[in-house]
Amino acid sequence: MKALKYEGEANVKVVDVPKPSIKDPTDALLRVTLSAVCGSDLHIYHGRIPGCEGSVLGHEFVGIIEDAGSEVRRFRPGDRVVSSFFSSCGHCYYCRRGWFNQCASKATFGYGVHFGALAGGQAEFVAVPLADHTLEPIPSDLSDEQAIFVGDILATGFFAAERAEIEAGDTVAVIGAGPVGLMSIMSAQLFGPARIFVVDMVDSRLELAQGMGAIPINAAQTEPVEAIKIATGGFGTDRSIEAVGLLSAIETAINCVRGGGTISTVGVPNHTSGEFPYLLAWSKALTFRSGWCNVQAYMRRLLDLIAAGRLKPDAIISHRMKLDDGEDAYRIFNAREATKIVLTP
Amino acid sequence: MKALKYEGEANVKVVDVPKPSIKDPTDALLRVTLSAVCGSDLHIYHGRIPGCEGSVLGHEFVGIIEDAGSEVRRFRPGDRVVSSFFSSCGHCYYCRRGWFNQCASKATFGYGVHFGALAGGQAEFVAVPLADHTLEPIPSDLSDEQAIFVGDILATGFFAAERAEIEAGDTVAVIGAGPVGLMSIMSAQLFGPARIFVVDMVDSRLELAQGMGAIPINAAQTEPVEAIKIATGGFGTDRSIEAVGLLSAIETAINCVRGGGTISTVGVPNHTSGEFPYLLAWSKALTFRSGWCNVQAYMRRLLDLIAAGRLKPDAIISHRMKLDDGEDAYRIFNAREATKIVLTP
Amino acid sequence: MKALKYEGEANVKVVDVPKPSIKDPTDALLRVTLSAVCGSDLHIYHGRIPGCEGSVLGHEFVGIIEDAGSEVRRFRPGDRVVSSFFSSCGHCYYCRRGWFNQCASKATFGYGVHFGALAGGQAEFVAVPLADHTLEPIPSDLSDEQAIFVGDILATGFFAAERAEIEAGDTVAVIGAGPVGLMSIMSAQLFGPARIFVVDMVDSRLELAQGMGAIPINAAQTEPVEAIKIATGGFGTDRSIEAVGLLSAIETAINCVRGGGTISTVGVPNHTSGEFPYLLAWSKALTFRSGWCNVQAYMRRLLDLIAAGRLKPDAIISHRMKLDDGEDAYRIFNAREATKIVLTP
Amino acid sequence: MKALKYEGEANVKVVDVPKPSIKDPTDALLRVTLSAVCGSDLHIYHGRIPGCEGSVLGHEFVGIIEDAGSEVRRFRPGDRVVSSFFSSCGHCYYCRRGWFNQCASKATFGYGVHFGALAGGQAEFVAVPLADHTLEPIPSDLSDEQAIFVGDILATGFFAAERAEIEAGDTVAVIGAGPVGLMSIMSAQLFGPARIFVVDMVDSRLELAQGMGAIPINAAQTEPVEAIKIATGGFGTDRSIEAVGLLSAIETAINCVRGGGTISTVGVPNHTSGEFPYLLAWSKALTFRSGWCNVQAYMRRLLDLIAAGRLKPDAIISHRMKLDDGEDAYRIFNAREATKIVLTP
Repeated sequence: MKALKYEGEANVKVVDVPKPSIKDPTDALLRVTLSAVCGSDLHIYHGRIPGCEGSVLGHEFVGIIEDAGSEVRRFRPGDRVVSSFFSSCGHCYYCRRGWFNQCASKATFGYGVHFGALAGGQAEFVAVPLADHTLEPIPSDLSDEQAIFVGDILATGFFAAERAEIEAGDTVAVIGAGPVGLMSIMSAQLFGPARIFVVDMVDSRLELAQGMGAIPINAAQTEPVEAIKIATGGFGTDRSIEAVGLLSAIETAINCVRGGGTISTVGVPNHTSGEFPYLLAWSKALTFRSGWCNVQAYMRRLLDLIAAGRLKPDAIISHRMKLDDGEDAYRIFNAREATKIVLTP
Repeated sequence: MKALKYEGEANVKVVDVPKPSIKDPTDALLRVTLSAVCGSDLHIYHGRIPGCEGSVLGHEFVGIIEDAGSEVRRFRPGDRVVSSFFSSCGHCYYCRRGWFNQCASKATFGYGVHFGALAGGQAEFVAVPLADHTLEPIPSDLSDEQAIFVGDILATGFFAAERAEIEAGDTVAVIGAGPVGLMSIMSAQLFGPARIFVVDMVDSRLELAQGMGAIPINAAQTEPVEAIKIATGGFGTDRSIEAVGLLSAIETAINCVRGGGTISTVGVPNHTSGEFPYLLAWSKALTFRSGWCNVQAYMRRLLDLIAAGRLKPDAIISHRMKLDDGEDAYRIFNAREATKIVLTP
Repeated sequence: MKALKYEGEANVKVVDVPKPSIKDPTDALLRVTLSAVCGSDLHIYHGRIPGCEGSVLGHEFVGIIEDAGSEVRRFRPGDRVVSSFFSSCGHCYYCRRGWFNQCASKATFGYGVHFGALAGGQAEFVAVPLADHTLEPIPSDLSDEQAIFVGDILATGFFAAERAEIEAGDTVAVIGAGPVGLMSIMSAQLFGPARIFVVDMVDSRLELAQGMGAIPINAAQTEPVEAIKIATGGFGTDRSIEAVGLLSAIETAINCVRGGGTISTVGVPNHTSGEFPYLLAWSKALTFRSGWCNVQAYMRRLLDLIAAGRLKPDAIISHRMKLDDGEDAYRIFNAREATKIVLTP
Repeated sequence: MKALKYEGEANVKVVDVPKPSIKDPTDALLRVTLSAVCGSDLHIYHGRIPGCEGSVLGHEFVGIIEDAGSEVRRFRPGDRVVSSFFSSCGHCYYCRRGWFNQCASKATFGYGVHFGALAGGQAEFVAVPLADHTLEPIPSDLSDEQAIFVGDILATGFFAAERAEIEAGDTVAVIGAGPVGLMSIMSAQLFGPARIFVVDMVDSRLELAQGMGAIPINAAQTEPVEAIKIATGGFGTDRSIEAVGLLSAIETAINCVRGGGTISTVGVPNHTSGEFPYLLAWSKALTFRSGWCNVQAYMRRLLDLIAAGRLKPDAIISHRMKLDDGEDAYRIFNAREATKIVLTP
């Protein structure tokens, strides 16, 4: 079958690889109908994730069950499903408490040997381990494009918003208007904030954010913390969400909230550690939340919200391409010429 | 000054009464700029509330501070304010816990001797006791019509929605599409439900509700519980809100929720007591909440949400009349020819 | 094997019945090491539950896995386990949301044909359907007597306390000091209340409750609502728990809470429906929760708390008898000569 | 009157100063009946807080109202009260939202010119600004020693425990067994944890903590994170509380929690900023809370809990001395020869 393979820094290729098959009785084999290129795929592309050489990439995908192991109970061949970007067992210490993102058997699709050595979904077929607790059925009235993001970036945006403790009437700042930032804005709107400010330096992203009801602040033109303080009577926002992964973005997220506020960060940190303003956090009584998204806990609910027209994640898709053009897709996405690219096999 | 007085069943008159004045150092005197006729004013009009003869009516009003007692700290003459429909002291056992609706000094404007003997706001002036904890300042960019309902029906709708424990993605049923039901729908939308069903028997009300994003069910044409069950895969909604006050409406609200669901009722009950399905509530593990709205806890937040364009309570105003025409206003409202009437002095 | 069978009103017998066996691949066969007689077994004994003739009774039991179906994943022969009093599938609409007590496949052990026709655990062996989601492993340092009540009455008491929304410093009233009431007191203590009042008419039960830190009120000697009002400065308790199932007990539970308070009832209602004080509930803004316990959601946590010495449910065992003496056990328990009876095969 | 004055590093003196008096109508004058020496008083003593020269020290005190300004509503001469360690107005943006610790008018007693220039309570009399929102009445059945700590260290311990999100059955680690750590343990017990581990290097403190039900870990003898991991099956505790203020203690608090856990820090940070493990916090989805205690929100509730015998904060008092011996008190406390010292005028 065809699959997009990582061959080294800035080097991906569509090649022929053996079609995967059911190995464990809890596996499902998926015929992929749509996959997407994620911002975190670029970390691999930039050579920053060790152990990815030779991997089939892709952790955002939907498809149709082609075959299911004997212990798969929730799915049968022909079912349309969306996958979480990582697998979970449903039975361990963490899964039984609902913390699927901490599952002892967690493995990330298409992220190399240090993340579980799972082949990814930018391919014609993908084998999904622990299918009952990794996949979610897609309601028949949803398209692949509507469903695909509940497995990663939409769930991450919702996770960010939920952990930000937004109450109806609150003000919120979202730092970063990339795909995850846009999903955070869309999700934050579900919690009834009075106003959402969004900080970025790219006008086209800010325009998309504005279309979702956010108030844009271009950090290339204005000092964002100051702008937010002025707009909130000097106090700052009640909550902030950080969707970038840089220390400078975290700093902005911390500085723009009022005393007693909450900062929720979901950007994958680009540094192992860094400075934290302990005295400020103490004197302002802040809450700082960080986290790899607990996708499995949100997939069904998000599909319901999309079906009801309350969330429109597919609105951010800027490019629809063929898997065969995967090499171009990575080049374009890396050049920031696309907001979000989806691929059909 | 001019004021609208209750003189007996189906008999209200605009008459001349002495202008009120500051009596206690915590009083404020308000020059009324807008008042409204509330569904609960009709209970008086129908002669069902004893002790109202001779009362100046009206518990929904906004105005400008004309004079303030020496211990009023939050307001000065010239300030624009909206009033809660009842007064609270801010210092008693209940107020200190945030339960202003249980305040030991609670008195309801324009509701007769059994509710504190306070003259109401359908008048040119009104004296407001315990002003610091009964009034809320109106942001300068809000009109009187935008602000007035935070003192009663909008706060009640929000209270209903908050106590319904709605989570993003839930389904909700609102029983009753009168003014409070409409405010409940508008407020429920702030909690991110996937779908809101609304049940009423008047098409024009259902159309207004539909305009707010609800799915209408005309109970005159369809059995509503059955309709809701069918639309939710046989399960029922996650939450329901009752905004009528009749036992039949409460029954619908109870029967349309799924196991583990929550019923939130705010309609003023028209009976002291009545049947409750104890065995059903136990086997389905239901939560049943009821309540006179805790207005003071919500006024500021609701004003923020209106200022941000998230809530548009003035959309339900159907008639704008003069206080001089108060007699007509009550007649029209009683005949159900108006959704909501506001009066200017 | 030996088993205790219901043969008609006030007529139970220990008889020989065929040993059960694994039928479905999700079944487990348990060798029972301890069972208990529950207050709700007396409903059967009194002939009030139709469809129980010929049933093996008993829904509180612990044991050792003798055999497990091919799809049972969490247990192997030799494991010590405690059972919920009802089975749940873990995969349906409700189970996936954590509402195991609303499971589409729910069946109650030893409760006759209208509750799923499951043979009970007052026997040498019992077949447990859907074992992965019905049983919980017992930590090795816990005795059978310590573990058995997490499958029913302790979980019910904890469920009652959790749903009562108790906050540290609150006052609580528990109506009824039978086994469930005592478990409610023990559980309520985990939420940090300042004081717990307990209402009953049997001095020996009140003494047990007092030993758990509650303040006893004998309703045969004092009007309990009045006594509670006096002890709380006229306000009433913040929360109440009803653990009887009679309308009069529910009435006491409603009347003894303050404005804004919460009533949590878990007593199995002895009437399908009855009077409810709608106007009072509205004017005091009450929350009324009722419910069949969601046992499966609590078993593990409760076992942890028992292992840590924070809960001592076995303290209420008054009689340790042999299964052979089951007939006596029912007679004694029915005569209210025992607080709680456990049986060993 | 007599008062304890800070005259420079390691130099405090009991001297004669003018008796304070009512200046603002919201002031109260207190005749101090008990004060305490706090760990944060030692920061002044060590010369680390600029602007304290010449200040009367002391921010933990109780007393009797001697005189009250004309606008003080809650208190009259003769009332026994306990003070928060800082004043709050009750009316500003923050106070109206319940965040008294962020009050625009906040001033700390006895902490020098940079914290509001308020004379402290280690004196015969103290003037309390904004008395209605800074003081709390003491129930008549509580002694001064029982009540005094609700104004600082007990409230801080409770705040730490509440923000740690402890649920019944959780495991908790408390880092530091000084006065605040001990109060945190006592408070954490109100949330029903299965087990509390406490980490310190002083055996006498660990023994006190053990007496409160905690499991002691002496960090001088064992690596605490490893010890906690072993005791929790390799997972770590569900929650941790940091009550020291050193980066090393915060590091332990972060490292000892499981994935999805919560760290609540209340120790006054001894550094403005420092390293934070961003990648770990993200991959484990941690919540990090920090904060200057919101004392005023807890005083009444804590007094209720003490009155009910649920909290016994006076158990940590090791030395009862006279104000005249204040110089000795500071010397002994600084030498760590006392757990907690109280002073009577």
